[in-house]
Amino acid sequence: MNLFEEGFEFNPTVLLELLITAGLKIIVLLIAFAIIKPIGKKAIEASINRISTQRNISEGRNQTLQKLSVNIFSYVLLFILVMMLLSVVNIEIGPLLAGAGIVGLAIGFGAQGLVSDIVTGFFLLIERQIEVDDYVTAGGYDGVVEEVGIRTTKIRSFDGTLNFVPNRNIVGVANHSRGNMRALVDIGIGYDENIDQAMDVLQKVADDFADDERFVEGPNVLGVQSLGSSDVVIRILGKTKNMEQWAVERDLRKAMKEALDAADIEIPFPHQVFIQKDS
Amino acid sequence: MNLFEEGFEFNPTVLLELLITAGLKIIVLLIAFAIIKPIGKKAIEASINRISTQRNISEGRNQTLQKLSVNIFSYVLLFILVMMLLSVVNIEIGPLLAGAGIVGLAIGFGAQGLVSDIVTGFFLLIERQIEVDDYVTAGGYDGVVEEVGIRTTKIRSFDGTLNFVPNRNIVGVANHSRGNMRALVDIGIGYDENIDQAMDVLQKVADDFADDERFVEGPNVLGVQSLGSSDVVIRILGKTKNMEQWAVERDLRKAMKEALDAADIEIPFPHQVFIQKDS
Amino acid sequence: MNLFEEGFEFNPTVLLELLITAGLKIIVLLIAFAIIKPIGKKAIEASINRISTQRNISEGRNQTLQKLSVNIFSYVLLFILVMMLLSVVNIEIGPLLAGAGIVGLAIGFGAQGLVSDIVTGFFLLIERQIEVDDYVTAGGYDGVVEEVGIRTTKIRSFDGTLNFVPNRNIVGVANHSRGNMRALVDIGIGYDENIDQAMDVLQKVADDFADDERFVEGPNVLGVQSLGSSDVVIRILGKTKNMEQWAVERDLRKAMKEALDAADIEIPFPHQVFIQKDS
Amino acid sequence: MNLFEEGFEFNPTVLLELLITAGLKIIVLLIAFAIIKPIGKKAIEASINRISTQRNISEGRNQTLQKLSVNIFSYVLLFILVMMLLSVVNIEIGPLLAGAGIVGLAIGFGAQGLVSDIVTGFFLLIERQIEVDDYVTAGGYDGVVEEVGIRTTKIRSFDGTLNFVPNRNIVGVANHSRGNMRALVDIGIGYDENIDQAMDVLQKVADDFADDERFVEGPNVLGVQSLGSSDVVIRILGKTKNMEQWAVERDLRKAMKEALDAADIEIPFPHQVFIQKDS
Amino acid sequence: MNLFEEGFEFNPTVLLELLITAGLKIIVLLIAFAIIKPIGKKAIEASINRISTQRNISEGRNQTLQKLSVNIFSYVLLFILVMMLLSVVNIEIGPLLAGAGIVGLAIGFGAQGLVSDIVTGFFLLIERQIEVDDYVTAGGYDGVVEEVGIRTTKIRSFDGTLNFVPNRNIVGVANHSRGNMRALVDIGIGYDENIDQAMDVLQKVADDFADDERFVEGPNVLGVQSLGSSDVVIRILGKTKNMEQWAVERDLRKAMKEALDAADIEIPFPHQVFIQKDS
Amino acid sequence: MNLFEEGFEFNPTVLLELLITAGLKIIVLLIAFAIIKPIGKKAIEASINRISTQRNISEGRNQTLQKLSVNIFSYVLLFILVMMLLSVVNIEIGPLLAGAGIVGLAIGFGAQGLVSDIVTGFFLLIERQIEVDDYVTAGGYDGVVEEVGIRTTKIRSFDGTLNFVPNRNIVGVANHSRGNMRALVDIGIGYDENIDQAMDVLQKVADDFADDERFVEGPNVLGVQSLGSSDVVIRILGKTKNMEQWAVERDLRKAMKEALDAADIEIPFPHQVFIQKDS
Amino acid sequence: MNLFEEGFEFNPTVLLELLITAGLKIIVLLIAFAIIKPIGKKAIEASINRISTQRNISEGRNQTLQKLSVNIFSYVLLFILVMMLLSVVNIEIGPLLAGAGIVGLAIGFGAQGLVSDIVTGFFLLIERQIEVDDYVTAGGYDGVVEEVGIRTTKIRSFDGTLNFVPNRNIVGVANHSRGNMRALVDIGIGYDENIDQAMDVLQKVADDFADDERFVEGPNVLGVQSLGSSDVVIRILGKTKNMEQWAVERDLRKAMKEALDAADIEIPFPHQVFIQKDS
Repeated sequence: MNLFEEGFEFNPTVLLELLITAGLKIIVLLIAFAIIKPIGKKAIEASINRISTQRNISEGRNQTLQKLSVNIFSYVLLFILVMMLLSVVNIEIGPLLAGAGIVGLAIGFGAQGLVSDIVTGFFLLIERQIEVDDYVTAGGYDGVVEEVGIRTTKIRSFDGTLNFVPNRNIVGVANHSRGNMRALVDIGIGYDENIDQAMDVLQKVADDFADDERFVEGPNVLGVQSLGSSDVVIRILGKTKNMEQWAVERDLRKAMKEALDAADIEIPFPHQVFIQKDS
Repeated sequence: MNLFEEGFEFNPTVLLELLITAGLKIIVLLIAFAIIKPIGKKAIEASINRISTQRNISEGRNQTLQKLSVNIFSYVLLFILVMMLLSVVNIEIGPLLAGAGIVGLAIGFGAQGLVSDIVTGFFLLIERQIEVDDYVTAGGYDGVVEEVGIRTTKIRSFDGTLNFVPNRNIVGVANHSRGNMRALVDIGIGYDENIDQAMDVLQKVADDFADDERFVEGPNVLGVQSLGSSDVVIRILGKTKNMEQWAVERDLRKAMKEALDAADIEIPFPHQVFIQKDS
Repeated sequence: MNLFEEGFEFNPTVLLELLITAGLKIIVLLIAFAIIKPIGKKAIEASINRISTQRNISEGRNQTLQKLSVNIFSYVLLFILVMMLLSVVNIEIGPLLAGAGIVGLAIGFGAQGLVSDIVTGFFLLIERQIEVDDYVTAGGYDGVVEEVGIRTTKIRSFDGTLNFVPNRNIVGVANHSRGNMRALVDIGIGYDENIDQAMDVLQKVADDFADDERFVEGPNVLGVQSLGSSDVVIRILGKTKNMEQWAVERDLRKAMKEALDAADIEIPFPHQVFIQKDS
Repeated sequence: MNLFEEGFEFNPTVLLELLITAGLKIIVLLIAFAIIKPIGKKAIEASINRISTQRNISEGRNQTLQKLSVNIFSYVLLFILVMMLLSVVNIEIGPLLAGAGIVGLAIGFGAQGLVSDIVTGFFLLIERQIEVDDYVTAGGYDGVVEEVGIRTTKIRSFDGTLNFVPNRNIVGVANHSRGNMRALVDIGIGYDENIDQAMDVLQKVADDFADDERFVEGPNVLGVQSLGSSDVVIRILGKTKNMEQWAVERDLRKAMKEALDAADIEIPFPHQVFIQKDS
Repeated sequence: MNLFEEGFEFNPTVLLELLITAGLKIIVLLIAFAIIKPIGKKAIEASINRISTQRNISEGRNQTLQKLSVNIFSYVLLFILVMMLLSVVNIEIGPLLAGAGIVGLAIGFGAQGLVSDIVTGFFLLIERQIEVDDYVTAGGYDGVVEEVGIRTTKIRSFDGTLNFVPNRNIVGVANHSRGNMRALVDIGIGYDENIDQAMDVLQKVADDFADDERFVEGPNVLGVQSLGSSDVVIRILGKTKNMEQWAVERDLRKAMKEALDAADIEIPFPHQVFIQKDS
Repeated sequence: MNLFEEGFEFNPTVLLELLITAGLKIIVLLIAFAIIKPIGKKAIEASINRISTQRNISEGRNQTLQKLSVNIFSYVLLFILVMMLLSVVNIEIGPLLAGAGIVGLAIGFGAQGLVSDIVTGFFLLIERQIEVDDYVTAGGYDGVVEEVGIRTTKIRSFDGTLNFVPNRNIVGVANHSRGNMRALVDIGIGYDENIDQAMDVLQKVADDFADDERFVEGPNVLGVQSLGSSDVVIRILGKTKNMEQWAVERDLRKAMKEALDAADIEIPFPHQVFIQKDS
Repeated sequence: MNLFEEGFEFNPTVLLELLITAGLKIIVLLIAFAIIKPIGKKAIEASINRISTQRNISEGRNQTLQKLSVNIFSYVLLFILVMMLLSVVNIEIGPLLAGAGIVGLAIGFGAQGLVSDIVTGFFLLIERQIEVDDYVTAGGYDGVVEEVGIRTTKIRSFDGTLNFVPNRNIVGVANHSRGNMRALVDIGIGYDENIDQAMDVLQKVADDFADDERFVEGPNVLGVQSLGSSDVVIRILGKTKNMEQWAVERDLRKAMKEALDAADIEIPFPHQVFIQKDS
C-alpha cells in the first residue's frame, strides 16, 4: 500500500511511468472538480431561487440561504479534493482523516444544537409559521416577533423584554395573528334572578355591539355555562378582528355590567350561609 | 489496491485488456441501473397507489407521497451508481465516502427530528387518526384540525390561534369527533332536602330532554355522586350527537335550576356553623 | 481484491477456470437459498402458531403476525442473496452497502419509535395485558379499549373521545376489568355524636346491602378513619362485581345519609369558633 | 482473500490438498462444538441451580431461568458455528454479517427496553426485593404483588385494579411487608386546655393499648408536635405488627377521642378572632 | 505492511533506497507543515478579526478568541504531523491511535458539556444576546450580568447572590434591557361605584404623569380588565424608560390611591354575603 | 491470511516448521498468562487491601470487593487467551468476535444501569457518604440505612417500610447523622403584645434549656422573623446532639407555650376585621 | 501479516535479520518512551503549577491534581508501549485490543458520570465558583460548603444535615457569599392611613439604621409596592454586609412595627365586608 512494497527493483522506467500516471490522475481530478463546482453552485442557487419564489421568501433571506448553502458545498468539495490528491500522490491520509474526525466529532457534539437550530429555522421560514410582527407563543415565550433568524428568533414580550429563542426550542408555534379572534365574557348573576330576563338584557347589549366593526361575528349569549357556588354564570361569545379581542372584551364587560345594574339584576358577591350554635 | 502495485512491468497488452474489462463493467453497470430505475419507480408508485386505495387517501396526498418516495429512491440510486463507476475506474472513493459521511452525519443529527416528523405524519395519515375538521387534543394543543401535513399539523384553537404542531410531538391523539359525546351535569341540593323528591324533579326534566333530537341516549339521573361539605351532589348523564354536548349541557343546567326553583328545592350556598366564644 | 490484480498474464485457461468456479458458486448459493427460504418460512409459521395456541390468540391476529414475520424474513434473505451473488461475480459491493447503510440509518433514526411500538404491542398481546372492552388507564388515557393494534391502541374515554395511543407510550397498564372492585364510602359525623351509635346505624345499612347481589364481599364499617377539622370521618368498605362499584357507592351514600337523618345523627357543615374582639 | 487469487496455476494436487485441509478443519470445528455445547449447558444449569439453592428460589422459576439461559447459549453457539463453517469453505460471510447486523440493530433499538426489563427482573428475584403477596409501592403503583415475571410485575391495587408494571420501571421498591409498621396519631387539643393533663389522659389510653397483641412496641405520647393555628397538636406513636397499622390507628383514634370527651378536654374547631368595624 | 514482508532478499541497495525515500517524504512533510501552520494561523486570526470588527467585539475578547482558536489548531496539526511521520518511518500507529482514541473518548464523554458551553458562549457573544450590565433572565437565574465568559456567565441577583451559569444552560435569554418597558397598574373599585367617573379620575392622574420624563408613552386608562369577586378591576398602562418601570409603578399606585380617596371612590375589601340560618 | 494462500507448493519441511513455530508461540502465550494471572491477582488484592485499610472498610466488604475484582480480571484474561490461541492456530476468530459482540451489546444495553449501580456503590463506600444506621435522604427515600450493597441500598423509612434503592438513583445524599442538628421553634404572639417583654419571657425559657445536656449550643431568641397576617412571629434557635432535635423541639414548644400563658402573653388565633354593610 | 506468509523458504540469514530488526525496533521504542515519560510528567506538573499559581489554588489541591494527571498519563503511555512491543514481536494484538475495548466500554458506560464529575469539579476549582465556607445553593442543596472534592462537594445545610453532591449535578451555582446582600422588608399599613405620614415614620426608622455598620447602603423607603386586599404594602430596601442580612431584617421589622405603633398607624388584619341577607 506504499512505495516500499514495490521497491524491490529500482527501475527508472517504472518510476517515470508512475509519475506520469499520477500526474494524469491529478489533472483529471482537477478538471473534474473545476467542472463540478460551478455546476453544483448553480444548481443550489437555482433550487433555492425556485423555492423562494414559490414561498414568497424575501430577497434578503434568499441571499442568506444561497450564500450559506454554497459556502458549505464549497468547503466539503475542497476537503474531498485535497483528500483525493493526497491519496493519489500516495501519502497515507489515515492520520489526516483521524485528525479531522476527532475535531469533527468534538465540534459535532457541541454543534448538534446548532444544526438543529438551522434545520428548524429553515422550516419556520419555508412553512411561514412565524413572520415578523406576528403575535406568537413559542418556546415558552409570548410576544411579538421582531426577527426570525437562521439560528435565533427574537420575540418582544408585552412587558418590553426582548427574548432570544434558539430555533430548536420552538417545537410548536401558537400563532395568534392568523385570522379572527374570539371575544369571550363570563358574567355571574344571582341565584334569585330570573335567568331568562338576564339573558335578554345581555343579548340586547350584545346586539348593540353587533354593529361594531371590530366584530366579525356578532357577540351572542350562549346560556348557563355553570352553576357556581354563589352565582349562575352566563357566557357571551363573539368573533373579532385580530388583536381587537382585548379592547372588545373590556368594552363588553363594562356595557354588560352597566346594563345589569340598570335592569336591577344582581352580580352577586360570594355567599355563605351561617348557622349559629352555642359553644 | 491501485495501479501502482501492478506497474512492475509496463506491458501494452495488459493495459488494453484492463481498459476493455473496465469498459465492459461500466456498460454492465449502466445497463443494470437503466433497468432497475424504472422498475423501482413503478413498484413504488404501484404500492403507494394500492395503499391509497385501501385507505381512501385523497388523490393529492397520494401524489405527494409518490413524488417524495420516487425522489428519495432516485437520489440514492444515483449515489450508488456514481460510487460504483468511480471504483471501477479505480479511483479511491474512500475520501468521497468520508466527505459524504461527514455531511450526512451533520445533517442527520439535525434532521433526526425531521425524519421523525415524516414517519409520524405518515402513520397519522395511514391510520386516519386525524382528519381535517376533527376537533382534537394533540401535542398539547386543543382545537380543530386545519391541515395534516407531512411535517406539521395545523390546529385552530377556539380562541382563534393557529397552532403549528410538528408531527413528532403528536405522541397521542385525543380525537373528540369520533362518535357520540357525553353530557354530564352535577347539581348540588341542600342537606335538608328530600333526595328522592329532588331526583324525581330532575328525572322529569331529563325525560323532557329525552325527545330532544340532539340526545342519542336520553339523560338520566344517576344518583348521589358525593356528599359535599354543604350539598348533596346529584349527577345527570346522557349521550349527545357529536359537538352538541356543550349546548345541551347549558340547556340542561338552565332547565334543572328552574325546575328545582319551581319545586322549592334549595341549591345551597356554602354553609358554615358558627360557635360564638368570648375572647 | 479485483480482476486487475491477477491480470498480469492473460491466459484463457485461467479465465475459463474462473468462470466455472464462479458459476458453480452461484448455483450452490441459489440452491442453498431455495432450500433455506421455505424451511425458514415453515419454522416461523409453526412457532407463531404454537404461541398463538398456547396464548389463545385469535386466528386473525395470528395471520397478521405470521405475514409480518415471513415478509421481514424474505426481504432480509433476498438482500443477503443479492449481496453474495454480487460479491461472487466480483463486483465491489462496498458502495451498495454504504448506500443501504445511509438510507437504513436515516429511516432507523425516525423509525426507532415504530419498532418500539411493535415490540410493546407484541407483548401487550402475548401477555394479555389489554383486551378489547377492558376499562384501562394506560399512557395517560383512561377509558374502554376499542382496539389493540400492532402500532396503536384505541381507547374510548367516558366523555366519548377516541384516543389513539402509540403502544410505546403504554409503559404501565392499570387494568380495571380484572376482578372485583372496591366500594368505599367515607361519611363524616358531628363531634358531638356518639361514635358507637353512628357506627351501629351505618352497619345496619351495610348489612342491608350485604344481600345485594352486586356485592361480592358485604360492605362493613371499618371505624374512625380520621378526626377532621369539623367532623369524625367513618369509613365503610366492600367489594363489588366489576364495573358495579360506582352505582353501588351512589346507592350506599344515599342510604347512609337517609339512615343518619332518621337516627338524628348530624352530618356537620364546616365549623368555626368565633371570638369577638373590639377594634 | 478468495479462490481467484491463488488460481494462477491450475494444479490438481493443490486442490486435493485444499479439500483435505478444509475437510479436516470442518471436522475439528464440529467436534469442538459437540464438546463445548453440553459442557456449557451443564455449567449454566449448575450455576443457576447453585444460585437458586442459595436464594431459596422456587423450582418453577429455577426451570424458567435455566431454559431461557440454555436457549440463548445454544442460538449464539449455532450462529458462531455456521459463520465459521462458511468461512472455512471460503464463502464471503461479510454480506451475511451485514444482513444480521441490520436486523439485529433494528430489533436492538426496540428491544432495549425488553433487555432492561429482564435484567431488572432478574435482580428483583435474586435480591428478593419483591415477593408475591407483599404490599409494595413500585413504579408508581401501589398494592399487593400478584406475580413477579421476567418482564412484567403484576400489582393489585386496593381498589381492585390489576396493574401491569414493566420491570424496568421499577427503579426503587418500597416494600411495606418487611417488618413492623408504625402507628401514628396526631390529636389537637384546645389552646386553653392544660397540656400535661391532656397528655396524661392520652397516655392512659395508650397504656390500655399496650397489652393489645397487635402492638409490638406499646403506643406512647411523645409531646407537643406543633402549635397549630387553633390547636396544640399532640403526637402518639407506636409500633404494630405488619398490616395491622390501619386498624390499630382507627381504634386508637376512637378511644382517644372518647377519652378526651370524658375528661372534658376540647378538640377544637378552627378558631377565628373577629374585630367589628363600622363601614 | 511492515519491514518483514519485503525482507526476502537482504539487499543493501534496497535499504539505502528505502532510507532515501523515507527521508525525502519526511522532509516534504515538514516543509508542508511549516508552510501550513503560519498560513492557517493568519487565516484564523484574520477571520476572527473581521468578525470582531463587524460585531463590535471588544479587543480583549477578540484576543481570547484568537488565542483559543490558534491553540486548538496547533495541537491538531501537531498530532497529524506526528502520526504521519510515524507512519512514514513504518511504525505501526494503530496502538497509538487506539490509545489516543480511548483517552479522547473518555474525555469526550465528560467534556461534551464543555464544548456545548463554548459553542453557546460563542453565539451569545456574536449575536450580542447578553452584554455586561444587562438585566436578564437566563438559565433559571434572574439578575444583572457581571461577566459573559467563554464557559460561564455570571449573573448578580437582586438579593446580592452571584450566580454562575454554564452557558449551555442558557437555552433562551429574556433580556430586560433592550428597549422601553411597560408600566402596568390594576386597580379595583367597588361594584357600586360609577365606572365612568372612576375612569375619569384615574385618567386625570395618568395625564399628570404623561409629562413625567420617565414615561415614553403616557399612561392611559384602558378599561374594565375583569369583573372580580368583590371589585371591578380597571387597568392603566404606559411605557417607560428602561429600568424605570418599578419606580413609576410605585408612584402611579400611590397617586391613584390618593386620587380615588379624594374622589370618594371606594377600593373595596373582599365582600361576602351572609345568610343567617337557625341551627 | 489463511493456510490456503501459502499452499502453492506442498512441502513437508515447511509444514513441520509451521507446526513448530505455532507450538512455540502457544507455549510462550501459556507461560506469559501463567505469569500474568497470579501477579495481576496479587496486585488487585493488595491495592484493595490498601484502600480498605486507609478507609476503614470492614473485612467482609473488603473480601467482597476483592472477589468481584479478581473474578472480572480472570474472565477477561481467559477470553483474551482463548482468542490469541485460536488466532495462533490460524482459525478465523472474526465470527467468534462478532458473536461475542452481539451478545455483549445486548447485555450492555440492559446492563448499563447495573454498571452504573456498581460504580456509584463503590464511591458511596469509598467516600463513606452512607453508613449503616445513618439517617439519610437519598434517591427520594428517607430513613435509616440498613445495608449498603454493591448494587442496592436498603433504607428503612420511619413508617416501617423497607425501601430498596438502586445505587445509581442515589445522585445526592443528605446525611442527617453527621454532626449536631438544629432545633428551631417559631412562635407567634399577638400584635398588641410588647415584643421586648415576650422576647424576655422566651429567652428565660431558652436559658433554662441551655443546661439540658441534649443541647450543644444553647437555644436563643433571634428576634422578629416575620410580621404575619395575625401574629408577630418570634424565632428561637439552638443546636442539639444528633437525633435529639425532635424531642428537644417538642419540649421547647411545650415550655414556651406554658411560659407565655403564665406571662399572659397571647398566642393569637387568626384575626379578621369585619365591616358590616347593608345589603 | 504474520510469520507464516514469509515462510516459503526457510533461511537462517533471514530469520537472524528479522530478529535484529525487531530487536532494534524494540530498543528504539524503549528509548523513545524513556525519554517521553519524564518530559511529559514534567510538562504536566509545570502546567498545573502555573495554573495553580495564577488561580491561588492551595498546595494540597495542587498536589492532588498533579498526582491524578501524572497517573493517568503513565497508564496510557504504558498501554501504548505494551501494544507496540507486542506488534513488533509480531503477536496479533487484535484480541487484546478487543478485550480491552469490551472492558473499557463496560466501565465507560458506568463511569461516564464519574468523568463528568471530574470535569465539572475541575472547573469549579479553576473558576473559583465555590470555596470552602461559602454559603451556596447548588445541585438542589442549600448550605455552607465544607469541602470541594474532585468528585463530590460537601454542603452543610442549616439544619445540620451534611449533603454529598456529585459535582456533575452542580449545573449552576448561586453563591450567596460574594458581595453585599440585600435587606428587604415589606410592611402593610391600613387603607385609611395617610401614606405620606407612614412613609415618613418608616424613613425615620430607616435613617436610624443608616449608621448601623452592618449596612453598606442605608435602608430607604421605596414607596407603595402593591395595593393588597386589606393593606397598602410599603417596601423598605437596603444593602448589608454579607451574612448580616437576616439579623438586620429582623431588627428592621421590630423597629418599624414599634415605630408604627407609636405613631398610631395601623398594620391591619385581613378585612372583609359583610352583607347581611335574610335566608
